[in-house]
Amino acid sequence: MAAERLVVIGGDAAGMSAASQARRLKSPEELEIVAFERSGFTSYSACGIPYWVAGDVPSHEELIARGPEEHRARGIDLRMRTEVTELDVAGRRVRSRDRDSGGEEWTSYDKLVIATGARPVRPALPGIDAPGVHGVHTIDDGRALLESLESAGERRAVVVGGGYIGIEMAEAMLVRGFEVTLLTRGAEPMHSLDPDMGHRLTEAMERSGITVVTDAEVTKVLTHESGRVRAVATDRAEYPADVAVLGLGVTPRTELARAAGLPLGASGALRTDASMRVRGHENIWAGGDCIEVLDLVSGRHRHIALGTHANKHGQIIGANVGGGYGTFPGVVGTAVTKVCETEVARTGLSELEAREEGLQYVTATIESTTVAGYYPGAAPMTVKMLAERESGRLLGVQIVGGAGSAKRIDIAAVALTARMTVDQMTALDLAYAPPFSSVWDPVLVAARKAVSTLRAAG
Amino acid sequence: MAAERLVVIGGDAAGMSAASQARRLKSPEELEIVAFERSGFTSYSACGIPYWVAGDVPSHEELIARGPEEHRARGIDLRMRTEVTELDVAGRRVRSRDRDSGGEEWTSYDKLVIATGARPVRPALPGIDAPGVHGVHTIDDGRALLESLESAGERRAVVVGGGYIGIEMAEAMLVRGFEVTLLTRGAEPMHSLDPDMGHRLTEAMERSGITVVTDAEVTKVLTHESGRVRAVATDRAEYPADVAVLGLGVTPRTELARAAGLPLGASGALRTDASMRVRGHENIWAGGDCIEVLDLVSGRHRHIALGTHANKHGQIIGANVGGGYGTFPGVVGTAVTKVCETEVARTGLSELEAREEGLQYVTATIESTTVAGYYPGAAPMTVKMLAERESGRLLGVQIVGGAGSAKRIDIAAVALTARMTVDQMTALDLAYAPPFSSVWDPVLVAARKAVSTLRAAG
Repeated sequence: MAAERLVVIGGDAAGMSAASQARRLKSPEELEIVAFERSGFTSYSACGIPYWVAGDVPSHEELIARGPEEHRARGIDLRMRTEVTELDVAGRRVRSRDRDSGGEEWTSYDKLVIATGARPVRPALPGIDAPGVHGVHTIDDGRALLESLESAGERRAVVVGGGYIGIEMAEAMLVRGFEVTLLTRGAEPMHSLDPDMGHRLTEAMERSGITVVTDAEVTKVLTHESGRVRAVATDRAEYPADVAVLGLGVTPRTELARAAGLPLGASGALRTDASMRVRGHENIWAGGDCIEVLDLVSGRHRHIALGTHANKHGQIIGANVGGGYGTFPGVVGTAVTKVCETEVARTGLSELEAREEGLQYVTATIESTTVAGYYPGAAPMTVKMLAERESGRLLGVQIVGGAGSAKRIDIAAVALTARMTVDQMTALDLAYAPPFSSVWDPVLVAARKAVSTLRAAG
Repeated sequence: MAAERLVVIGGDAAGMSAASQARRLKSPEELEIVAFERSGFTSYSACGIPYWVAGDVPSHEELIARGPEEHRARGIDLRMRTEVTELDVAGRRVRSRDRDSGGEEWTSYDKLVIATGARPVRPALPGIDAPGVHGVHTIDDGRALLESLESAGERRAVVVGGGYIGIEMAEAMLVRGFEVTLLTRGAEPMHSLDPDMGHRLTEAMERSGITVVTDAEVTKVLTHESGRVRAVATDRAEYPADVAVLGLGVTPRTELARAAGLPLGASGALRTDASMRVRGHENIWAGGDCIEVLDLVSGRHRHIALGTHANKHGQIIGANVGGGYGTFPGVVGTAVTKVCETEVARTGLSELEAREEGLQYVTATIESTTVAGYYPGAAPMTVKMLAERESGRLLGVQIVGGAGSAKRIDIAAVALTARMTVDQMTALDLAYAPPFSSVWDPVLVAARKAVSTLRAAG
């Protein structure tokens, strides 16, 4: 019998990375590992679902980094389709329910990892549960949507929500040959961008053939007599829909943690320390889409659901559970996506976020090209940069442009982490050759303009 | 009459950037600007010449950022095809010669900018000046080469030198339908890469159809009776050549400065302070390919000829000459290029360079993909990372891989500038979405492996 038992709740990125890393450090004789997963899938790339739906990725199996049998072969007792329904912190045990047999049991633990993830926001609107209305958070969701696309009478899709998932799904529907309307609440889609940059994205989507409706407050889903979705209604109009996709963001899945009295932040997500341990609990760690992370730029804790963070959390938790040591310093808010040929990326603070933090700033927006202007395939790209008044500290960058634009956001992500000023950035030794960049990389051009603007501002 | 006169020697990137920036800050009434340029072209992208030769760029005119008339319209007295033949520092004057009329004159200055650039290395080998043997440093060089390609009897090209220009010209000749042989001195081309990474480039070139001959010491150029190149001979073999291209690097063009007694470094390039002023000379600045720059990683001064640096130098010189203030902190040794589908990039120190600096290090080499492995177009990429023993400080990164690999070197360039450790790098919040990256960016995977290797090394 193992000396200790680790229980992991949630078998996706954070949970299974933690389990795998702990297993690398501790043998089954030292540490028994039991993992519970509600669904039928482990360790899959939820971020890849739009590309599977689009047909770019031929099968959901390609999205699975490691299946249940692979985990079991590494000595992890993985219980699939088994939901943890209660967490007894005082008793150091969890109650689980087999979703097929309905059988329940208690499992005790010495150490616990909570990686329960997030769930898509699904507003309580009339008709929202009608056949043909889909979330796209899990492989099961993707499969249901694909079936729905096949059975759609006509080919009109409405996407509700203009965030990352919304715009990726709009592209996917378009690729599938649907007429696509995207409904978004604000003045522009992608609220993590400033409206001027969001507007560039709107224009790009419309050039690609997506109808973008802004300031759209969805009020209900209308259905056929069969019960299937017929249209999505806003306060101002009805949009015919043979399929509707919800892309309204996610909310942390922390009911278990809340019921157990674990500390939650304002977002409803778990609060951990730098070692990913749940505050106040020696033997409980949490990671992935169910926690808040420190935003290194603002100093605030925020809920950011992103697979790449979940993987990092899992590694760090696994190291700590396994007797090693690791910490997660935080994030700078980097995100990237694309719609057809247009790439979009952001990091740090937007204008709205900077104002919310009481930070005064200047902005610099420049137009350049993805590669040397004379090199074949040069495409326009726009870079917007925010720098703090007086200090000149970089606060944030947003990019919208052609192929090769978006990954440049990493330059800013590293600069933010290092707390560089825009003046320091102007001298960065970035890679230059005509097939890769103008002689001044667009990020440097933006930094130069930010410096001038700061000087002019005094 | 203007209060002061600025003389600029050299009308390409550094010189004309300096002149333009100074002009922005000072009116013609305050500062007269006279610039001398030997050739018939100003402010052109020498780095673009291979792509013009390849036919990717239709005309040399596209390589010219700003022509003589544009500079003159901005109030710069630009003397084209006029060579400065003597610099009289004590008398604050330069002697110039009109290359067409042969007329000479002295021009006095209050402030001087030396931006004389570099010249291609042209070893004193028998036959090296034969028709059909070409350097590719100037637009005139490119034009001569293009004529030579047209008049070539058969279509066999030999490229001498395996550095950036060499491999770019090999690709250009290949695109032009030539059978291409590249002769390189070392065990692999691209000596700024470690041989293991250079070997990946060799393999990529050979897959593209370029014959790579390593350890090749060129001894002479053989000619037809007409005088035109017939073959390039090494100590071991002869390689038939209807055209030969020299890509043996460049050497700083500092004869004027040397004769005037200005301070040169070991490389023969000028030494400046952080404000780009020539050491010991209040009123003389220098920038671009004729100076040494501080390598921030090693702390040494090195001669690195690169257009992007020259542009930065020019901006800073212009600011300082014009009464503003700017400094150039140094470089980290970033460079990038491509051969057909294969991209290659490096920054910081190679193993050889680290050893030369007395630095002890570990290396980590990883294989990953340019985008998520399941996403269409995912191509292999290799990342090699060097980290200092004990401190864990990042020392250098090298990348070879498919489209989208190389610009990732910028992540390392910023991290080097910020003197990050590889442990700090593992937590970087880099952009992730399946069309852009695996969930762990390859640079992060390399950093993680470097951390493990450091730990294992104790």
